[in-house]
Amino acid sequence: MNTDLQLRPAGEADLPHILAFIRELAEYEKLSHQVVADEDKLRATLFGPRPYAEVVIAEWQGRPAGFALFFHNYSTFLAKPGIYLEDLFVRPEFRGHGIGKALLVHLAREALARDCGRLEWSVLDWNEPAIGFYQALGARLMDEWIINRVTGEALERLAAKG
Amino acid sequence: MNTDLQLRPAGEADLPHILAFIRELAEYEKLSHQVVADEDKLRATLFGPRPYAEVVIAEWQGRPAGFALFFHNYSTFLAKPGIYLEDLFVRPEFRGHGIGKALLVHLAREALARDCGRLEWSVLDWNEPAIGFYQALGARLMDEWIINRVTGEALERLAAKG
Repeated sequence: MNTDLQLRPAGEADLPHILAFIRELAEYEKLSHQVVADEDKLRATLFGPRPYAEVVIAEWQGRPAGFALFFHNYSTFLAKPGIYLEDLFVRPEFRGHGIGKALLVHLAREALARDCGRLEWSVLDWNEPAIGFYQALGARLMDEWIINRVTGEALERLAAKG
Repeated sequence: MNTDLQLRPAGEADLPHILAFIRELAEYEKLSHQVVADEDKLRATLFGPRPYAEVVIAEWQGRPAGFALFFHNYSTFLAKPGIYLEDLFVRPEFRGHGIGKALLVHLAREALARDCGRLEWSVLDWNEPAIGFYQALGARLMDEWIINRVTGEALERLAAKG
């Protein structure tokens, strides 16, 4: 047991940390231009009457070092929920302590505790260090599946069809 | 307005139809060996105290013709939920009436009504008819993302790590 590392569910007081993590992750993924999240929007969707996702904060020696944000997906073949990890991020200065792995292990335990059939997440195909890390932890790449996304004006056009 | 087609939320009485649709879809995807769902498991996870997904039934001239099963995912960049369409299926004898498109349009409207930022789903990379159909409806292929999955014994091994 590493007492330098503490994992705990996030509360409303963590909103500044959560927003900072999201922005730092977007920067790493070269997607900063897509971030419109702010504290009010996060509060409404994560800590409102219908929370759409859960957040785990990783603290290293008492300092916020990283986070995982996840929600439940569903497998019709298993007729069971799964855990889908939407974001995992560890600040560069805290890497090398096994924090990312500890967050994945934590979510695997949550998945079993909640009778979920799967733990899933996505990775950018150019992020080879991450892919190797995930495969060493037992992940299988579902590379025969491609995600389709309809958003923005395309979503409005689809909703307006016949 | 096509009065032959009715879309409605599924209730517990639809469990036999839902299970039949799941099995027929798995057969089409050549994945029947993965289906362990049964009516009891579906009841517990779709109509129990914590429903993990929602189902829309499409009826054509009063007969169950297809279904869509979806749940909410979450975008940290938008700080908004999305709708993730897990399964969409129309029985072969009911194809050609625009039922699949009507289900997607219905979900796009639900997404806007629920202030969701996106409608997303996955497609098998060999299913070119489906891919063309989705692109014509405004979907963008997120083919730089690859899904990682940990399940079964690999999930137990990950949960047992130090």
